[in-house]
Amino acid sequence: MSDSEFDLIQDFFAGLDQGASVRLGIGDDSAALSLPEGHLLHISADTAVEGVHFLASLSPADVAYRSVMAAASDLAAMGASPQALLLALTLPEADRVWLEGFSRGLAEARAAIGAPLVGGDTTRGSLSLTVTVLGSTPADQYLTRSGAQPGDRLCVSGTLGDAAAGLAVLSGQLAVDESAAAFLTTRYIRPAARLALGQALRDCATACIDISDGLLSDAAHIASASGVRLEIDSALLPLSETLRSSADLEQSLDWALAGGDDYELLFTLPDNTPLPDGCVEMGRVVAGSGISCDRTPERIGYDHFRR
Amino acid sequence: MSDSEFDLIQDFFAGLDQGASVRLGIGDDSAALSLPEGHLLHISADTAVEGVHFLASLSPADVAYRSVMAAASDLAAMGASPQALLLALTLPEADRVWLEGFSRGLAEARAAIGAPLVGGDTTRGSLSLTVTVLGSTPADQYLTRSGAQPGDRLCVSGTLGDAAAGLAVLSGQLAVDESAAAFLTTRYIRPAARLALGQALRDCATACIDISDGLLSDAAHIASASGVRLEIDSALLPLSETLRSSADLEQSLDWALAGGDDYELLFTLPDNTPLPDGCVEMGRVVAGSGISCDRTPERIGYDHFRR
Repeated sequence: MSDSEFDLIQDFFAGLDQGASVRLGIGDDSAALSLPEGHLLHISADTAVEGVHFLASLSPADVAYRSVMAAASDLAAMGASPQALLLALTLPEADRVWLEGFSRGLAEARAAIGAPLVGGDTTRGSLSLTVTVLGSTPADQYLTRSGAQPGDRLCVSGTLGDAAAGLAVLSGQLAVDESAAAFLTTRYIRPAARLALGQALRDCATACIDISDGLLSDAAHIASASGVRLEIDSALLPLSETLRSSADLEQSLDWALAGGDDYELLFTLPDNTPLPDGCVEMGRVVAGSGISCDRTPERIGYDHFRR
Repeated sequence: MSDSEFDLIQDFFAGLDQGASVRLGIGDDSAALSLPEGHLLHISADTAVEGVHFLASLSPADVAYRSVMAAASDLAAMGASPQALLLALTLPEADRVWLEGFSRGLAEARAAIGAPLVGGDTTRGSLSLTVTVLGSTPADQYLTRSGAQPGDRLCVSGTLGDAAAGLAVLSGQLAVDESAAAFLTTRYIRPAARLALGQALRDCATACIDISDGLLSDAAHIASASGVRLEIDSALLPLSETLRSSADLEQSLDWALAGGDDYELLFTLPDNTPLPDGCVEMGRVVAGSGISCDRTPERIGYDHFRR
């Protein structure tokens, strides 16, 4: 095989651009998409840099899967349906084995979110990926960070802290048995964007964000955008049985509050609105600003330029 | 100033997200756009890596401007009107002076293409940028690489080779007087996406591509996508007076044929269609495959993984 830039794209990514909305896929100067009439377009881009956003030891399939899911999670937080994704991949060399693994993970993620890969770029440099995701919602039926009202319930999907514990397992800082390791590392390596939940929340939630940087950090974004205060009760945080049996309660709560990478949805609901399945209430929206929690973990959230 | 990731985005890029189509700009999980009814969405992403796609000596304003224009040029090649852009910026440190220059160039490019900056990401790592551009065309009224027909005229806008000569000036390989240096380096540093021409060509051109990798390389893409052969007459290549007076004819032609970075449009027109202003015919479309030219430069086009 020639390892030229163009052949790379053709060989590894060209088969992933099929979809009902795609008028023109990979191979021209741009892709062309037909979006549902009367819908809004939602768009977001996420970059992942090796050694900063993911461990150098991650398999290429996991790098691809995790990066696409992290980007798609932003669409989940808006209540949007994925329509397409683009991948800008910078890599040090055209390694066929690496690219085969990577494209396998990419195909899995593409199938999981149900959106075609319609374009991107392939360049030489230190390993990083920028995934751009496009989604749609009916006009004016989307979620934002800014609609939380005093009196609303503060809720979250799934369980928190598993991904941070999984990262600790992968980096040798937490020793657990094989099945716990499999569960926790999968939560870190193969997160699930909560797309169906996000779409269901369009009808009821007043504000929503996905938990990528850590619960406290992301809750602060809702508080700031909505002009309210969020009170979090650490005793109500949803912790998985595996996490509880793998670490002491203090450590588990710190991961749940500040660990990040869970890609669950944090949202606010009017007081009389029932909780969706698989979600719990763990706090309240009150008048004021900022966030409060009965527990302060050592490190709050994730910030590339404060590390 | 706190140099946190979030403050960076707020401080330097937040003011650039205004536009008629923007329902929700920077600051939520995704941007939301309202596109013209009945239009197709066009989308493309381009990555530029320091030392590979631009000289490390380029000013931050020029890095920003050039990267946005290179991405917008893909929309020009489709005949699309820019609607929005996203910037994923990876940089080694949060240098305020650098970011001020960069955001100035970004604002200039944003104004030049008339599209708001609606999102992106800021991460730490070696310097690279991925610019994603969104554009629109009336449904089914867009240009592709694949419509060229035997008998069509092969045409190009502007002049070719200036940007390659400008790069030679910047890297100390070509010595010219001050005004020639200003003209040639500006052609490299501040390219203009031919957006108005691309939109005008929607009504008449059978195929179109922008010249980013080099005339021969990009012509080969049209030939391949259209299933035709392109014959290029080097004597008809448009060379600027400055280029002609700055280098010998052989070198000028090599830059015009293989230099890249000109971001002019290469397009095919039916035989009876008049040439748009500022464009010349420099070849023909014939039956067959590939490209032919009476001159073969030493290096054809640009390929990251063949360098």
